[in-house]
Amino acid sequence: MQPARQLVERISDGELRAEDLVRECLARIQDREGVVGAWETIDEEGALAQARTLDRESRRGPLHGIPIGIKDIIDVAGLPTRNGSPLYADNRAFRDAACVALLRAAGAIPLGKTVTTEFAYLTPGKTTNPHNPRHTPGGSSSGSAAAVVDGMVPLALGSQTAGSVIRPAAFCGTVGYKPTFGMISRAGILPFAESLDTIGVFATTVSDAALLGAAASGRAPASQLDVAAPPRLAVYRTDLWDRADDATRDTVLTAAQALREAGARVEEVPPHPDLRGLEKTHAMVMAFEAARSFAYERQLHWDELSPKLREHLQQGDAVGPEAYDKALGAAESGRRALNELLGFADALLTPSTIGEAPEGLDATGDPLFDRTWTLLHAPAVNLPAGRGPRGLPTGIQLVGPVRGDLHLLSVAAWVEERLSAS
Amino acid sequence: MQPARQLVERISDGELRAEDLVRECLARIQDREGVVGAWETIDEEGALAQARTLDRESRRGPLHGIPIGIKDIIDVAGLPTRNGSPLYADNRAFRDAACVALLRAAGAIPLGKTVTTEFAYLTPGKTTNPHNPRHTPGGSSSGSAAAVVDGMVPLALGSQTAGSVIRPAAFCGTVGYKPTFGMISRAGILPFAESLDTIGVFATTVSDAALLGAAASGRAPASQLDVAAPPRLAVYRTDLWDRADDATRDTVLTAAQALREAGARVEEVPPHPDLRGLEKTHAMVMAFEAARSFAYERQLHWDELSPKLREHLQQGDAVGPEAYDKALGAAESGRRALNELLGFADALLTPSTIGEAPEGLDATGDPLFDRTWTLLHAPAVNLPAGRGPRGLPTGIQLVGPVRGDLHLLSVAAWVEERLSAS
Repeated sequence: MQPARQLVERISDGELRAEDLVRECLARIQDREGVVGAWETIDEEGALAQARTLDRESRRGPLHGIPIGIKDIIDVAGLPTRNGSPLYADNRAFRDAACVALLRAAGAIPLGKTVTTEFAYLTPGKTTNPHNPRHTPGGSSSGSAAAVVDGMVPLALGSQTAGSVIRPAAFCGTVGYKPTFGMISRAGILPFAESLDTIGVFATTVSDAALLGAAASGRAPASQLDVAAPPRLAVYRTDLWDRADDATRDTVLTAAQALREAGARVEEVPPHPDLRGLEKTHAMVMAFEAARSFAYERQLHWDELSPKLREHLQQGDAVGPEAYDKALGAAESGRRALNELLGFADALLTPSTIGEAPEGLDATGDPLFDRTWTLLHAPAVNLPAGRGPRGLPTGIQLVGPVRGDLHLLSVAAWVEERLSAS
Repeated sequence: MQPARQLVERISDGELRAEDLVRECLARIQDREGVVGAWETIDEEGALAQARTLDRESRRGPLHGIPIGIKDIIDVAGLPTRNGSPLYADNRAFRDAACVALLRAAGAIPLGKTVTTEFAYLTPGKTTNPHNPRHTPGGSSSGSAAAVVDGMVPLALGSQTAGSVIRPAAFCGTVGYKPTFGMISRAGILPFAESLDTIGVFATTVSDAALLGAAASGRAPASQLDVAAPPRLAVYRTDLWDRADDATRDTVLTAAQALREAGARVEEVPPHPDLRGLEKTHAMVMAFEAARSFAYERQLHWDELSPKLREHLQQGDAVGPEAYDKALGAAESGRRALNELLGFADALLTPSTIGEAPEGLDATGDPLFDRTWTLLHAPAVNLPAGRGPRGLPTGIQLVGPVRGDLHLLSVAAWVEERLSAS
């Protein structure tokens, strides 16, 4: 499927009607949904009606006529928000989440709700990896990543509490962008861990990801993503480098070399002591907060929660308030450390995942390489950059400073162009 | 009404049944609600049924049998969450907010929903000041503050985005406690401004406020609030001292003197340059975020929003992303400045409000003296400490370091005891 920016241009120029674009998406879904399983709810009638309205209007905004997949923890007025759990089968949304309303104002058309893991944690839904249906698409934004890479929609919204945007983007081989924490409002979205939950986006290009991120946050989209000079990149292996498989390490180092050859200043940076172990700090914060977020479900519906979630909530009980408060303090030190590292580089270049998408549909893979950046509230972008031993995509992750989204996206666009040429 | 701690003891000792306590609350409401107007919804049957269940059980937790008022932006399963807006008249909650579920687990009984201003902003509901019905109770947690001070319930939950806990507590003359940002989960609560919204509590004593704050956050309550030695207090006039009226300034300085005489080390601390103007920074952050939170209501229900809210949302549009991002950076500097100040003192002693509750019910007063501490995520306690020229309560505010809640509450309990003796 063409990038959204080009589709919007074609609609603006009268070459394409929004209604036809919606029908094209529906046809692709019709063909492929039986294998991919990206959708929880498809609002065919609503989407077609909105498309016809938009076709009668002049350009409403930068996403005029673009169908979008919405992760099913995000409210769309009138549709159920099932949160990947049978408990919420009948939970019809009273209003649009703020980000959905902002997307409508930009001219976007919510085509339906995409499959999420249970409460955006680790227990998978029905989605498969579009490259190979025996492999996981990653999670928790499984349906959003799969729908975009499979050409069912040009854009989709997801969310990340550990690695739920970067990981499925890497496994499915598409662009995933997790903005700075708080940039996209969470009003109308199921909370899992409040100091971590971050709304993110999936797109086929960095430019599209930037467009969707801006629109969903109520900001004007940048007209262009430019860097004044080739960027300075810090290759950051982390303390977890040994946990990455050969393909992942090769993907990162090969990309680093290609970007060096393309003119970037690329240097290895040793792990910062104040970032050491933050993946464990993240896991503690996440469990402690989740143990509280789901107080209601725990009391009344414990037996209807998945074993993985139950175990996580019990881990949260074991953390204790003192360790939690200390963990938040460690996150603050980590933020200062990241700012130090990024005083000498435009972005960190680091793995997105341990490896390519694992075989099997009973798990969604490990968010190990994403936890620290989520904890630190830093913006991050996954770019597809290689293949693993099973022929599935691998990715690189670019991490920028908190609130430095626009520059990070500009760097990512530069990298994307050089990698596609290399 | 007796403090909750004593009521729980009496229930535990078999001297009081939870059902009788609920009936006592209902009787007080029956008498006074026509004047005070603290309640949006009263769940008489549900509360009595829960009380009877608790009366058959052994002690469920530290709030066993205690009726609680829940601000009507906080979900209680099965009851409407009206958010102070006719738009939400039919918005029935699918589940309990996390903090409500945690309170139930502690044995508390949600008695009903207390009146909030429209979306917890400035447009008042029907509540009056229990001391004088021609005066505002303050807002936005109007019903929660009024219900507690009027003896309708021993405890209530509120929330603060600018001054919505500390201000009504000061105006109504009761203890208000705004915990560290994030301590009480916001799952199931209407967002207004995500980086500011903080759940808080109302009680008649500091000890009760600590108990409720702990239970609502899923933490074990402290058995005692002790300080090892008389505390060090920094009298902090702020740069806004001239905006406080004579009664407020007198309340703060008289309390300072009384506490000095009681053995506290009390020193004036000049305004810190990095805290200067943060009340304006707060207002920008609040408006920018609210302009996004209410994207849905703006698009579909603009004419049904109050003029004050519409103006605020338009102000939010005028802020712009660059100023907003800069404001968040200023807040981070402010947090470091507050930590510096609190390196030499246990708490700041500062005004809660400009003055006593203003006359009239068409406005809820000014949160000026609360904005900075909300922005900085610092815990704060209001203690009643004097009277204004109209005979209405004035308060002092104690502010502690982020995550230093337990020590702040211990200091506040020390101060409360000394002030009540003076």
